[in-house]
Amino acid sequence: MTKFTAMAKKTVSLPQGTRDFGPEEVKKRTYLLQTIKSVFERYGFQPLETPALENLETLLGKYGEEGDRLIFKILNNGLHEPSKQPKARQALENLFNGKSDPELTERALKYDLTIPFARYVAMNHHQLTFPFKRYQIQPVWRADRPQKGRYREFWQCDADVVGSTSLLNEIELANIYHEALTRLRITGYELRVNSRKILSALAAFCGKPQELMTLTTAIDKLDKAGLEKVKEELAQRGFDQKQIASVGDYLNIKGPNEQKIAQLQKLFAALPEGLEGLKEMEQFLQSGLLARSLPIQLDLSLARGLNYYTGIIFEAKAPEQVQIGSIGGGGRYDDLTGLFGVPNLPGVGISFGLDRIYDVMETMGLFPPSVASGTQFLFFNTGPEELPASYQLMQGFRGKGVACELYADTVKFEKQFKYAERKNIPYVVIVGSEERQKAHFLLKKLQTGQQQSWPMEI
Amino acid sequence: MTKFTAMAKKTVSLPQGTRDFGPEEVKKRTYLLQTIKSVFERYGFQPLETPALENLETLLGKYGEEGDRLIFKILNNGLHEPSKQPKARQALENLFNGKSDPELTERALKYDLTIPFARYVAMNHHQLTFPFKRYQIQPVWRADRPQKGRYREFWQCDADVVGSTSLLNEIELANIYHEALTRLRITGYELRVNSRKILSALAAFCGKPQELMTLTTAIDKLDKAGLEKVKEELAQRGFDQKQIASVGDYLNIKGPNEQKIAQLQKLFAALPEGLEGLKEMEQFLQSGLLARSLPIQLDLSLARGLNYYTGIIFEAKAPEQVQIGSIGGGGRYDDLTGLFGVPNLPGVGISFGLDRIYDVMETMGLFPPSVASGTQFLFFNTGPEELPASYQLMQGFRGKGVACELYADTVKFEKQFKYAERKNIPYVVIVGSEERQKAHFLLKKLQTGQQQSWPMEI
Repeated sequence: MTKFTAMAKKTVSLPQGTRDFGPEEVKKRTYLLQTIKSVFERYGFQPLETPALENLETLLGKYGEEGDRLIFKILNNGLHEPSKQPKARQALENLFNGKSDPELTERALKYDLTIPFARYVAMNHHQLTFPFKRYQIQPVWRADRPQKGRYREFWQCDADVVGSTSLLNEIELANIYHEALTRLRITGYELRVNSRKILSALAAFCGKPQELMTLTTAIDKLDKAGLEKVKEELAQRGFDQKQIASVGDYLNIKGPNEQKIAQLQKLFAALPEGLEGLKEMEQFLQSGLLARSLPIQLDLSLARGLNYYTGIIFEAKAPEQVQIGSIGGGGRYDDLTGLFGVPNLPGVGISFGLDRIYDVMETMGLFPPSVASGTQFLFFNTGPEELPASYQLMQGFRGKGVACELYADTVKFEKQFKYAERKNIPYVVIVGSEERQKAHFLLKKLQTGQQQSWPMEI
Repeated sequence: MTKFTAMAKKTVSLPQGTRDFGPEEVKKRTYLLQTIKSVFERYGFQPLETPALENLETLLGKYGEEGDRLIFKILNNGLHEPSKQPKARQALENLFNGKSDPELTERALKYDLTIPFARYVAMNHHQLTFPFKRYQIQPVWRADRPQKGRYREFWQCDADVVGSTSLLNEIELANIYHEALTRLRITGYELRVNSRKILSALAAFCGKPQELMTLTTAIDKLDKAGLEKVKEELAQRGFDQKQIASVGDYLNIKGPNEQKIAQLQKLFAALPEGLEGLKEMEQFLQSGLLARSLPIQLDLSLARGLNYYTGIIFEAKAPEQVQIGSIGGGGRYDDLTGLFGVPNLPGVGISFGLDRIYDVMETMGLFPPSVASGTQFLFFNTGPEELPASYQLMQGFRGKGVACELYADTVKFEKQFKYAERKNIPYVVIVGSEERQKAHFLLKKLQTGQQQSWPMEI
């Protein structure tokens, strides 16, 4: 056996960045997902599932150059057919030159849930009722270098509303964060918000309207690196002292949300986009519709890869003590499906970082112990004579919803006890010949060793 | 807009053989899966999830030559790097010659759930408690030619017990079929059983012990093609008249299960393997432990691609009237993990054909209407004055578990009614200025038009 085991170790493995989920993990993940799903559904969001495979051309060019490289592409089948070989050779050369070629690969694994969602809406927009509210919880794949907490196959969990510009959608999504995280008992989390319009106004305010991305990339690091580092980065990127000072003024704005807004209104008094963003933010924060206990904070350094956001943006931060950072994010965008030929569909969406939320819950011990429980009763195999009585009793318990097993082989009690222990089965049920004659069964609690005799008619 | 739509139709599509599942389908599928899962768990089976990606070498050679060709292989990333190009070119040539080469592709999409399960058990057998009972419900991918009811991305649903040779496992699996299909209200289904040992004995009995596969491939067609066609096929395959007559005698055995067994015992009186198979079958069918209402039939023509089965085999057949055929199958095997260096792990497993069971349920109208229901109450947007009262009322209902939406934009009632209708939302809630002043709300049932005023404190 040892020889075989060594061989197994050498040859059997999983691809880097992928994971098996054993029973306990599946159950905990199911609990997590089920909790979030039930909140989505109460808020009127409907489930959508799209295939793992998409046409490669659906995905290419949507995630930037780096993204294109990290998409997992599927090799076409049937390339060995003689008629296809010359084209496949040429396609490989094209690939070397950075051009994907359908003669070699025309399908790919989905890279996120947003583009497949956009593709779905574009394909079905005549049949859909707008505003369309969907949630989607599925795996995605990225050929990123694997590292702690970053996988090549991982799950995303998104909720979006498309076809409505009302701020009420942002309010609903903020309340969804709060309700889901509260139901998961994650206390101490914080919902940070900002606005693309406020950040644009800042770029204009400091005299660098064209450098919005450079600016936001730098200030996004405020939390981790501190103000001095942000200023250094801006200096390296060609911001002059006066411009840097303007950014400093902005980042130094402190206090409760209303005070921040009031100060920004002064700072941006001459900038219509800034004032508009502030008005929206005020309406959002002061609508009276956000959950009263929602820990929401206007975070002026929040940027979140701004590329396609156009309005309010969100980030859910894990409780400080677990040092896990962001556990979710999202924001408003103007145009979901334009790339697929269906223009003018604005929307707003959020996502939950499932792997990180799982880690938060493990670290804080928030999974209820019952979540991971499996079989409740192990029925001992006491031999063929007693089997029918045992089995019938077990089917009665199963009918009442109790997860039960009967040890399949007739082996020593010691081995059966060990099985129950190793599987954390809390109770064993024994129907021996004596019990059967009295129409009783013995129920033994493993943790305490206590046992009691019960009549079969339960 | 028309121009854009035409463009969208042309360019946006899904890969052949893949599907989107919209809200209603997801909900029906969830109901189906949840029902089966809950039965698995009551029977002590634990969930397992393995990644979509496996190392290609884990899968190659496990499904025959045809299978190897139908595996979806992932193109390695980073092939454009100059150092990798020559090897990739060579790897493509190797591929043309039928050899997969890790320089071009080293990962693949899983092709079924059994091999990944075997890989998991081989990798973790030191930590697992045997007998190990797992269920697994996940998508798999095959580059088959798509056709009606056959997809390239589809879901499998398997339950297996490994590490036990007891027939009690077969009994449990048969009862699981019955309980799951009964809970789904699929009446009229039938569970067919047979045994590899009986089929082996038949091959010996008719003097063609080496031709087991030829024989079983032919008799497996009895149901669809009839006895004469089976005989024709056997003749074409080199069976002589006497041998064919022996097969005919076997296939003509009719009657209740016990009678069939009794006749077979005479036929196979001189064949130890046959008698052993019959003894097992008798123990299985007459244990007294199978659910009394289980419609189980010993079907002597049942074969199911016998390759790795060694004992009792199963097939669940859809009710005759829906003409869908097999909705599940399985059987006992001797060696799950030998290919991965861990020998001597026997097991038995079954699978449910989810897509087909879905079709059976649609055809027979078995999905409870409540399964597909979404939002229950649509709160009308009656303008900013009434919004806080409406919203607060809605949050109260959501807190009680009712799925609610508030129409996000302030638009005409007509449009809001239309939204409710198109989404099949059964009730609308209206809080106008009059209602708000009286602390009432109006609840209107869309189907009947009936409306009633209720106090806000519910």
